[in-house]
Amino acid sequence: MPIDLPREPDFAKAGGLVPAIAQDADNGDVLMMAWMNAEAFAETLATNRAVYFSRSRGKLWRKGEESGHVQTVVGIFVDCDADTVLLKVRQAGAACHEGYRSCFFRQITTTDTQVVGERLVDPAEAYRKKP
Amino acid sequence: MPIDLPREPDFAKAGGLVPAIAQDADNGDVLMMAWMNAEAFAETLATNRAVYFSRSRGKLWRKGEESGHVQTVVGIFVDCDADTVLLKVRQAGAACHEGYRSCFFRQITTTDTQVVGERLVDPAEAYRKKP
Repeated sequence: MPIDLPREPDFAKAGGLVPAIAQDADNGDVLMMAWMNAEAFAETLATNRAVYFSRSRGKLWRKGEESGHVQTVVGIFVDCDADTVLLKVRQAGAACHEGYRSCFFRQITTTDTQVVGERLVDPAEAYRKKP
Repeated sequence: MPIDLPREPDFAKAGGLVPAIAQDADNGDVLMMAWMNAEAFAETLATNRAVYFSRSRGKLWRKGEESGHVQTVVGIFVDCDADTVLLKVRQAGAACHEGYRSCFFRQITTTDTQVVGERLVDPAEAYRKKP
């Protein structure tokens, strides 16, 4: 059976939004997971800057537009079901709004939960409201 | 502000299911994305075998129960919003039901879509019905 070569994720099947995983293109760290609609995907593909759809704000979220922590996209991949996106990115600053390099900075074991990630910036500084 | 140290993802906030990303613990490849409910998470934590919740079948999916392509879990991480899980795993065989090592075997560029992943097994063999 030939493999399908879709030009974009199957947004219709997924109800309009698909998960998008951002991975550090250099060291392979998984940095974050967010959501994309068709418009966010198209703009990411066209500009090589990661653009997501913010479910809480109900609009496009150009990653780094407030913090400066932009993601330059070096590769876009789609999974077998065409309902999840993987971005390989070069991350400026911290991916996480908590100031950690990766959003996955806490490890859960059977005995406890520990912070294992690297905090790069003070989130109060990164997201300080402009005067 | 102290960092919260949750013992599990916030399934209630997420509507019962959270995305779970499986990453190769050795080479960092992102292998697949699936979903977990509280029961799947608890069993994964207790057994160190990746267990997901199959939305199509409406039940727990012990990865590899049919194909033998199990995932041994070596680390479990939760993101800043406690609504996405990252598993670092050792993958037996192929993560993808299409026989590829990773589900993200297709790359989309502005000009075309290409298969870039490594196909390890014939999916017709891996999922052949037992006589």
